Amino acid sequence: MSNAGGLDVVGLGNAIVDVLAQAGDDQLKVLRLVKGSMALIDADRADSLYGEMGAGIEASGGSAANTMVGIASLSGRAAFIGKVKNDQLGRIFRHDIKAAGVEFETPAVAKGPGTARCLILVTPDGQRTMNTYLGASVDFDEDDVHAATIAQARITYLEGYLFDKPAAKAAFRKAVALARDAGNSVALSLSDSFCVDRHREDFLDLIAGGVDILFANEAEITALFEVKTFDDALQHMRGRPLLAALTRSEKGSVLLRGEEIHVIDPVKVPRVVDTTGAGDLYAAGVLFGLARDRDLLSAGRLGSLAAAETIGHMGARPQTSLARLAKEAGLA
Amino acid sequence: MSNAGGLDVVGLGNAIVDVLAQAGDDQLKVLRLVKGSMALIDADRADSLYGEMGAGIEASGGSAANTMVGIASLSGRAAFIGKVKNDQLGRIFRHDIKAAGVEFETPAVAKGPGTARCLILVTPDGQRTMNTYLGASVDFDEDDVHAATIAQARITYLEGYLFDKPAAKAAFRKAVALARDAGNSVALSLSDSFCVDRHREDFLDLIAGGVDILFANEAEITALFEVKTFDDALQHMRGRPLLAALTRSEKGSVLLRGEEIHVIDPVKVPRVVDTTGAGDLYAAGVLFGLARDRDLLSAGRLGSLAAAETIGHMGARPQTSLARLAKEAGLA
Repeated sequence: MSNAGGLDVVGLGNAIVDVLAQAGDDQLKVLRLVKGSMALIDADRADSLYGEMGAGIEASGGSAANTMVGIASLSGRAAFIGKVKNDQLGRIFRHDIKAAGVEFETPAVAKGPGTARCLILVTPDGQRTMNTYLGASVDFDEDDVHAATIAQARITYLEGYLFDKPAAKAAFRKAVALARDAGNSVALSLSDSFCVDRHREDFLDLIAGGVDILFANEAEITALFEVKTFDDALQHMRGRPLLAALTRSEKGSVLLRGEEIHVIDPVKVPRVVDTTGAGDLYAAGVLFGLARDRDLLSAGRLGSLAAAETIGHMGARPQTSLARLAKEAGLA
Repeated sequence: MSNAGGLDVVGLGNAIVDVLAQAGDDQLKVLRLVKGSMALIDADRADSLYGEMGAGIEASGGSAANTMVGIASLSGRAAFIGKVKNDQLGRIFRHDIKAAGVEFETPAVAKGPGTARCLILVTPDGQRTMNTYLGASVDFDEDDVHAATIAQARITYLEGYLFDKPAAKAAFRKAVALARDAGNSVALSLSDSFCVDRHREDFLDLIAGGVDILFANEAEITALFEVKTFDDALQHMRGRPLLAALTRSEKGSVLLRGEEIHVIDPVKVPRVVDTTGAGDLYAAGVLFGLARDRDLLSAGRLGSLAAAETIGHMGARPQTSLARLAKEAGLA
């Protein structure tokens, strides 16, 4: 990889404030929610669902945004591109990501729907079920893709969720083209198995062509290849030039590129409180490792370490310096 | 006490959304903050201080509001009277307190400053340092004091912070008069030692006259009587008809009324994470006990139990059913 400037990674994604509340499995059934999934909802459903949720806390989120915060916490240089409205939640989002040390200069929109919200129900097993109202995120388009930022980042990271809106998809494609023109790498997260179902052909095209690093969990990678088992999906990925980082929850992860393959153990946590952001923080560790020219095994271990921190508390962003944890684990 | 209707307690206070972030002791010094205190700040200071704070989480707060949520969590019937704006944070405040089972019907204001915010810096020892921008709370006045609600509550609970604005102080006095006319009890929290300094004579008048139950911590009760030691303050309170509930952080609390006196041990917690709301939740336990005709000792133990729950996590409101904890502790 070349490095034209000062950034390790730039992430493009939906700029979202999470609303997290505890919920029972029974409540998920009553509300017709598929446990562990992400559903897109409209303003009316957001209002009615919020009315049914218990008292909660609010915290900045968004998949790629969480990943950029994780990279900054690992002492990496990260930037985020995404769209908020100039409202209270938008100001909270901007404050939090900048306070975490991530560059964020995308202008806010002044009119229209409010800053995106994700209503997250956390069950006693720590699983999260997400319901996203995209709000102002639908205004994210090609004009927001800042060419100079893409050019100076070793890796451009894109969340698959962007494929859910045509304007964001166009922004996505522009970012891929800019990164490749600058000789930088492109990383993609499949984000969600239902998202994969909605956009399978586009994702397969990108993986065959424009993507250097792919993140997917077990449900997403099996959905992509329409196979039943993790091993089936693994065989589809073998021997390809791209790096695949495949996460398996409590089973850890598998990293492969060409003929190289590593099976990585998860980092144990005393208690799983809330898995929101686990995949995002895993990606942070791996991307930071790759941007700093670490070997695959070390990058994977950094991913496991970052994911473990975030599942020990409510909310998707680290509450402890990941750089310090990495140092303590001998991974700095 | 008489009980005209269906409520155990109605609380009047500032309707506030908390913004909590971790901070080091060094940062408090740089920002010229007095550790453990509550300072009132204006909009400009709120903006600049927020800019200096780290990434945080947002959670509904407000002293009396937290207390009412605690009473509901103990299976009590509680109502809250306070003022939000019809903005994003105001809607979050309303959602959370209603989702917690507390009646809240005070209309929101449509214009002017936004919903009140409290910027809270939490140091590694779990202490909180609070900076309150009152915003829309300054619109709280006598017209918001709903007479029927006051009449049907066995106890009307008022936070001392209301004394910081003349209109809220007038609302406070109206609520006291309505409660006394209905034959109900009046409870007061002194809220903060600097608040006591600002309004000492008014508080002393109320304690001599209109108040049946007084909550104060060690700093507040010594500030009130301008004495140096807790025991000095205690002697000032001895033999009075009103019930005094005096909290002493990790030393527990002392309850006294007339010649009766109890020294209550704190409930131990594995780790003190954030003391925000500890006093508010102590008041919840005591008020619930009193409204349900428990003896003083049991009421004090309920207070210690509720306070212990909230200092084990970030945020001022319970994350576990206090009714269940009370049952497990043999206090139900």
